[in-house]
Parts: sequence; C-alpha cells; structure tokens
Amino acid sequence: VNISSKLLENAVEALASMPGIGKKTALRLALHLLQSDQEDVEAMSNALIDMRKNIKFCKTCHNISDDVICNVCASPKRDQTTVCVVESIREAMAIENTQHFNGSYHVLGGIISPIEGIGPNDLNIESLVSRVKDGKVKELIMALSPTIEGDTTIYYITKQLKDYEVNISTIARGVAFGGDLEYADELTLGRSIVSRIPYKND
Amino acid sequence: VNISSKLLENAVEALASMPGIGKKTALRLALHLLQSDQEDVEAMSNALIDMRKNIKFCKTCHNISDDVICNVCASPKRDQTTVCVVESIREAMAIENTQHFNGSYHVLGGIISPIEGIGPNDLNIESLVSRVKDGKVKELIMALSPTIEGDTTIYYITKQLKDYEVNISTIARGVAFGGDLEYADELTLGRSIVSRIPYKND
Repeated sequence: VNISSKLLENAVEALASMPGIGKKTALRLALHLLQSDQEDVEAMSNALIDMRKNIKFCKTCHNISDDVICNVCASPKRDQTTVCVVESIREAMAIENTQHFNGSYHVLGGIISPIEGIGPNDLNIESLVSRVKDGKVKELIMALSPTIEGDTTIYYITKQLKDYEVNISTIARGVAFGGDLEYADELTLGRSIVSRIPYKND
Repeated sequence: VNISSKLLENAVEALASMPGIGKKTALRLALHLLQSDQEDVEAMSNALIDMRKNIKFCKTCHNISDDVICNVCASPKRDQTTVCVVESIREAMAIENTQHFNGSYHVLGGIISPIEGIGPNDLNIESLVSRVKDGKVKELIMALSPTIEGDTTIYYITKQLKDYEVNISTIARGVAFGGDLEYADELTLGRSIVSRIPYKND
C-alpha cells in the first residue's frame, strides 16, 4: 500500500502489529480514526495505556484483577475448595462464560513446552502447590488443552502434589456436542470409544 | 463476555468502537496488548494520537499530507493538468496503487446525497472550480461510484464548470475484468451492451 503520509504510515504499522490485523484492515481502521473526533481517539488510546499500566494480577489465582485479590477469589458465593487450573486468562474467561463452574481458578500463565523453552519454573505452579499445601483445596480440575504439552503439565503438577490429599480430575475429552462424527479426528474418535461412558436410561 | 476487570472492559469497549471489530476480536486484541511490553502499547497509542492530531490536508487537493501541499501536488513528475476527482482519501489511495495514473487528485470529501443530508456546500467543490478557473487543469476524470449519488455529483460539478474549457470524463463502467458474466448484475450487463466498444484487431 502506497501511503502519502508518514503519520498515517506509522499509525497503520502500529495497528498492524496486533495479531490478526493485516495492512488493509489497519489502513481501514486508521482512516476511521482520522475521521473520528480527536477526543475519541485520545480516549481510546488512553484506555489501552491505562489497562496495560494499571491492571493487576490476583495474588491467589494470577487472573487479571483491579484489586490485589480478584472478584472470584474474594467471593464468598464461590466454592474456594474447587480450583480449575487453566493455561491463561482467556480459558478462565471462556469457562466463566459457560456459567457451569462455581469454583475458583488458577492461571498457570502457559503450559510446559520444551520446544518453546517453557519449563515448570516459568509457570505459576509453585503458588498452586502452596494453595494445596494450605489445605483449603479439595479438588483440582485440570482444564488444559488435550495435547502432549497439556498432558505433560498435568503429569508434572500431579507429581508435585503426590504428598497432599487433593482430588485431581481433567475435563472430559471426547467428540464435541452437536458435531458430526464424520468430521471428528481419528484420535478423538478412537479415545472416545476406549473411554466410553455407561448409558443411563432415566 | 463476562470480564472481571473494569480496566480490561474499558479497553475492550474502546477497541470495539472501531468498525469491523466485534467484542470477541476486541477481547483478543486487548489480551494481546496486556501481554505486550508497556512501551509497545504506549508507542502504538501515541502513533494513533499523533496521526489524528498532526496530520494535515493538502491545500490543493484535500488529500492527507504531512505538509501544506501533498507529495503528489508538489511533484514535478506528476501531470498537474489531469485531475482525478474522488470521493475520499481511500479511493485516491486505491487508484494510486494501480500505478496507472500519473496526474493529480481532488478529494471531494463525500458525494452529494440528499438522503444523508450532504449537499454541494459540504464538499470540496468550490476549490475544484477554483483549480479549473486558474487555467492549469485540462482534464477532470470523475472517479466516483457508479450510483445515483455519484452521477448527481458529476452532473452538479459539470454544471459549475460549463463556462470553463476543461474536458470531463468518467472512469469506464462495465463488467469487471476476470469476472464471470453469469455473476454480473443485470444493470451493469445491460449498460455494457449499450456502451459497447468497437473491437480492435491489432
């Protein structure tokens, strides 16, 4: 794209640095901002800086928070004995949106991946062990990706906790609800047969 | 989407105020910025504010410019006697990218649209008439949308210029290159037959 203004060029480049935003989309967004009120552009930009600068991470679960302890960890309405272990903030949000979970979370900040050079010490595993050590956690639900990295992480955490009395479970794996069996991958399909569930005729 | 931080919420809302950015995409972008260096987030935000605050519009053609007169209007390599009239900056860029035009531009800043309450006085038509009056423009190429509004705008401008010696043309209209005739709309197809071009067997 041939752009005749250095200022526009810089703005396009800045916008295109975000994932999933190509040069064309960035240009469309920049031209939109150019036609917006200056105040609105400043408000938007400041909201981004403000978030990056001032957001906190919960001391207990490492999820994002405006306070030292997040809403979920601070809530007496949530079951603090059941902790759902997730890779990142995104998964915690996705699970929260299902409205099927009333426990609390623990955000690892990644999963163990030797290829990407991420080891156990790069993750929030020590603080998870501390939470269990404190004796208030009865169950850990491992909600990690069903990949080798996810399984390695679950295995590692389980080993760290072998001396403590805590139930560890993983989220159910199998064919997706509403999905066509024809399109399920062979590994998933094979494993769903092996780990079949007795049918209850209520 | 249930978000547990007011700061994140504000950032998502700000990003989602841009066209084509939904709540889900905005959240993805905000979480990306949250994991970026603070300096990078500030650099991006400042690039947007800087653009909005400091960009200038060329006094001659009203295109964006870092100076009083834009690169195209200031260039001795461009044919300043041929002026391509466009609705907005975007179309000027698109034509510039074709590399098939070596003249200069005139950005109207919209087209006449009674429905949207846009009249001739809301557009950069007076300055176009002045450019023609000055006697340096030999041809105006009307590169406006082939719609009623575009045609109305061309008609209005042509009337304003009836006392001056200037050739007025419109960009060619017809079926798109490489397009399948089957999918061309009836109006375009009908008009392409009426305004057929003699075939040259070179």
